[in-house]
Amino acid sequence: MGSQYPPSLRFHLSGLILILETAFIILFYFFVSYDHRSHQRDFAIYPAFQDVNVMVIFGFAYLMAFLRRYGFSSTGFGLLLAALGVQWVVIVDGFLFNFSDGEVKINLQSIVAALMSITTVLISAGAILGKVNLMQLVGMAVVELTAFTVTRWLAVDQLQIKSHVSLMHVHLFGAYFGLMVSWVFNDASLSLRVEKESSKPVSELFAMLGTLFLWMFWPSFNSVLIKDGAEKLAAVYNTYFAIAASSVAAFSFSVATSKNGKLSMAHIRNATLAGGVALSFSASTIRQPWIAMILGLAAGAVSVLGFAFLQKLLDSPLKIHDTCGVHSTFGLPSILGGITHVILTMIDNQENLSILGYSVLIEVGALSLSMAVGLLGGILTGFFLRCKLWKAPPVTKYFDDQAYWEFPHLAVGY
Amino acid sequence: MGSQYPPSLRFHLSGLILILETAFIILFYFFVSYDHRSHQRDFAIYPAFQDVNVMVIFGFAYLMAFLRRYGFSSTGFGLLLAALGVQWVVIVDGFLFNFSDGEVKINLQSIVAALMSITTVLISAGAILGKVNLMQLVGMAVVELTAFTVTRWLAVDQLQIKSHVSLMHVHLFGAYFGLMVSWVFNDASLSLRVEKESSKPVSELFAMLGTLFLWMFWPSFNSVLIKDGAEKLAAVYNTYFAIAASSVAAFSFSVATSKNGKLSMAHIRNATLAGGVALSFSASTIRQPWIAMILGLAAGAVSVLGFAFLQKLLDSPLKIHDTCGVHSTFGLPSILGGITHVILTMIDNQENLSILGYSVLIEVGALSLSMAVGLLGGILTGFFLRCKLWKAPPVTKYFDDQAYWEFPHLAVGY
Amino acid sequence: MGSQYPPSLRFHLSGLILILETAFIILFYFFVSYDHRSHQRDFAIYPAFQDVNVMVIFGFAYLMAFLRRYGFSSTGFGLLLAALGVQWVVIVDGFLFNFSDGEVKINLQSIVAALMSITTVLISAGAILGKVNLMQLVGMAVVELTAFTVTRWLAVDQLQIKSHVSLMHVHLFGAYFGLMVSWVFNDASLSLRVEKESSKPVSELFAMLGTLFLWMFWPSFNSVLIKDGAEKLAAVYNTYFAIAASSVAAFSFSVATSKNGKLSMAHIRNATLAGGVALSFSASTIRQPWIAMILGLAAGAVSVLGFAFLQKLLDSPLKIHDTCGVHSTFGLPSILGGITHVILTMIDNQENLSILGYSVLIEVGALSLSMAVGLLGGILTGFFLRCKLWKAPPVTKYFDDQAYWEFPHLAVGY
Repeated sequence: MGSQYPPSLRFHLSGLILILETAFIILFYFFVSYDHRSHQRDFAIYPAFQDVNVMVIFGFAYLMAFLRRYGFSSTGFGLLLAALGVQWVVIVDGFLFNFSDGEVKINLQSIVAALMSITTVLISAGAILGKVNLMQLVGMAVVELTAFTVTRWLAVDQLQIKSHVSLMHVHLFGAYFGLMVSWVFNDASLSLRVEKESSKPVSELFAMLGTLFLWMFWPSFNSVLIKDGAEKLAAVYNTYFAIAASSVAAFSFSVATSKNGKLSMAHIRNATLAGGVALSFSASTIRQPWIAMILGLAAGAVSVLGFAFLQKLLDSPLKIHDTCGVHSTFGLPSILGGITHVILTMIDNQENLSILGYSVLIEVGALSLSMAVGLLGGILTGFFLRCKLWKAPPVTKYFDDQAYWEFPHLAVGY
Repeated sequence: MGSQYPPSLRFHLSGLILILETAFIILFYFFVSYDHRSHQRDFAIYPAFQDVNVMVIFGFAYLMAFLRRYGFSSTGFGLLLAALGVQWVVIVDGFLFNFSDGEVKINLQSIVAALMSITTVLISAGAILGKVNLMQLVGMAVVELTAFTVTRWLAVDQLQIKSHVSLMHVHLFGAYFGLMVSWVFNDASLSLRVEKESSKPVSELFAMLGTLFLWMFWPSFNSVLIKDGAEKLAAVYNTYFAIAASSVAAFSFSVATSKNGKLSMAHIRNATLAGGVALSFSASTIRQPWIAMILGLAAGAVSVLGFAFLQKLLDSPLKIHDTCGVHSTFGLPSILGGITHVILTMIDNQENLSILGYSVLIEVGALSLSMAVGLLGGILTGFFLRCKLWKAPPVTKYFDDQAYWEFPHLAVGY
Repeated sequence: MGSQYPPSLRFHLSGLILILETAFIILFYFFVSYDHRSHQRDFAIYPAFQDVNVMVIFGFAYLMAFLRRYGFSSTGFGLLLAALGVQWVVIVDGFLFNFSDGEVKINLQSIVAALMSITTVLISAGAILGKVNLMQLVGMAVVELTAFTVTRWLAVDQLQIKSHVSLMHVHLFGAYFGLMVSWVFNDASLSLRVEKESSKPVSELFAMLGTLFLWMFWPSFNSVLIKDGAEKLAAVYNTYFAIAASSVAAFSFSVATSKNGKLSMAHIRNATLAGGVALSFSASTIRQPWIAMILGLAAGAVSVLGFAFLQKLLDSPLKIHDTCGVHSTFGLPSILGGITHVILTMIDNQENLSILGYSVLIEVGALSLSMAVGLLGGILTGFFLRCKLWKAPPVTKYFDDQAYWEFPHLAVGY
């Protein structure tokens, strides 16, 4: 099985990523060096850096391991995308944000920012898993990370958005970028794919590992790069209460929307995280826990309703097939969070109309920018990836699936 | 399958937890705000907070995933109970311990204390998993957490037990509370349940994940809320050596007590943790590692012997069915630890008879209080949960078990 | 099944480890006490201690869980070896490095050093898993940890190697020690064992858990005991970039070396870690990220090539059977790292010829010492473990494998 394609193709992936790595090393040689001026702060964020590391390298990878055919792919491919991505974002981010005297100085905060940026690619990959091959995923990663970092630079440099807030656009950007790529890749064989997407109890337990580690470390994700102590702790508390409230909403709405009063594993796996996503923009500025809890509750509800009613709508009339349901997990809660952030900004500045108008304009502008670049970038990337250049065996074939064919009932991770 | 019950029932769980969450938000609105006076200490315990978070949200949930029918339940339900519980304990704990000027001020230590308190519910759930539905588990959580926090307040306020030591009663309280609920729920269908409780190699490997993460982070659990530096590190070291010794005891006694000289997976999974449980009361006061090691060794031995000889005794004449063996894992080692703590207190104060008598009285009083409230509270809660009010489909039915029926050989997590 | 051996044998393992534990307690009673002079540093490394703890207790155990027959063994046995090992190394290390006034003073750094030393045993166990029983593993652990700690003392005391660098010899020492034990245990039944060593998709996903947690926390492993702030952060950054580059190399070379252009799971699982191994000696002294990246890339390539071409060579003419491929994962990258370290030392000191010669002599001496003691110690230990004394049922029989025989298609962890 899987050997129908000509052997010459095998060097494509091999060569592509080796050339990329060589290019990275050359760029690092000429431009990148270590920044030794921020030791104290680097040590202070080291534990939270490891939490974010666990979320990006382990959490997102296993979250998507629920597909019984793509389990191993999702964990293995996630690692490759992250390994390439972290180096690439350090370079692009460095050139845009920290370039001086012909040099890019990097420290632990650069690596954390790079890891958080990679989230965009992992979310987009969730929408298109099973439709593209590994080479196309690598191509998408390079394009998407560049687009996201440039967008982020525009938001910080032109719109004066805070740097740590600009990184919170990852969910919005990643979800709509991925959906657009998926839309371009939509074709008639969609119905055939359904079988491959079914989950198994074992793979659900693996996916739950991803969910739980994302859930637990989300407070670190939303707070790690905040410098002010009070704002940082507020971000931790708000995220914790919001994600707790969204978990309650996930269970409640999952039972209420099902036909037979049962819980849906997909809802539990994903909607429990909606509170963390929705909180991201305003994690550090919300001053009372009850606001975070209401936002989390609403995010969990919106996420479940998205799964229950919107997913099919996207699939059939709009022809956007969303393998892991990233629209309901990351897209919708992120939009809800963005709107809430604008409203809270308005309330905070209601006494000073000139600041009010200015702030709202900036926040709306930043959200629109991410959304626009995400949508447009996704479409362009989709068409770019459909070029003959990338033709290669479908993604699952990269792994030796002999075991699968011999023991189909055991195939969790293929 | 699973659709025999009337559709109206489906709104029960959905409504119950939504009402609870709304009530929490209202209470938070009127009473709870963030405490910004302890930033330095909050940042200092952040890494240990995440360790405890991993233990409560992930460790305990997966520890009970060894049941092939309840794997997904144990992980999903654990998350719901923790999400509701953390908010509820923050409120109750706040009213009892930190209420001033009509306000409850919370910080990271409040959240850590809440997480540690939730352990009681997760332990109790281990005793009754498979006998109650999710609504009953939620009801039990609210009652148990209230009872535990009030008990803790009595111990701290009346008996002058240190606050961090009062949280170490979770194992004792949770185990006996759960056993009593189980006793009330005992019925004739017990023998039928045995099949459902069998484990599978795959589910054993998932459960071992829970065991290992609990094992590794137990030093954080026993030390996170201790303020004095020397005592905090002593708690870390003592816990580490005790849990290492109890692991050795678990292997040794497991082989010695088995009929055919094999290791029992249940012993390894649970008795390895006994050292951490037994150490909890005296983690910070033991001054020499060898004392911690002897206590850990004894705890591991007691735990294995409990599994090997006491479990059946509980089951058959006493009619207390203990699904996950929480009595041997948490109950017995906790009693051993309590008695040891009293003896060590006596030795420490042997030169001053008046302090000796007073200290012993307090320690014995606190243990008896936890035990008494745990036992009585468990019985009352058990009868309360048997009301018609809670009648709903059995717990496993909440998940769509179609896959299970189609692929029974794969059903790990149902 | 598994009950063919006489019941008297069951007390061997039980008694052996209980006697060991009792001996440890007695030694601790007479010699070991807590060191309260380094609180600040102990608290500073606490988060990194937990990362190393996760690597040793969880990461290495699950890395070897890919064997469908030895999954549970690898996780359970790893815990026993670590629990015994940490106590034994604390004693031996204490006597050699921190003995004064008839007392050994221990702190968190002692426990971290002990945990890192245990890596040698877990790596060696990877080479011989399936060939020895649990008693023999325990025997090997005691001998190997003693030999390693004495070697380390010689390197630090005689060759003036830095203490934290001496711990980086674990990979080299563990791999060649294990290979030699395996060589002594080689016999005709080798071909029969191949079936037992096959993996399953489910077990691959468990093993990937181990890989990812090792990958993520490797920067902590290479930096935790470094005292100088700048060197510590350099070690973190260098390790991160090296392990990222080795992951890219693993994917690239895995596709290039396979016959049908597919990725090999064994390559991904192991070669992705090669960068962390190769970096260990020079993590803190490399000053530019591109050097770390080139070393990581080379290590990943060497590791894959080792799996693809060298593994069979070891197996068949040399009769060294390497169950988990520790030679390619730890042995080769470690040699590459050692040679690179010597070359970098030469470049650093090229202006001062007397220091150059001296430094190179020391570094080469330390590497040769580890290699020599590892090889010789492995052979002697192998013959020691083949004594009749250790005869007991083969390792897998310790677990009740009934479930395996009843549900062979589900047997992941046996």
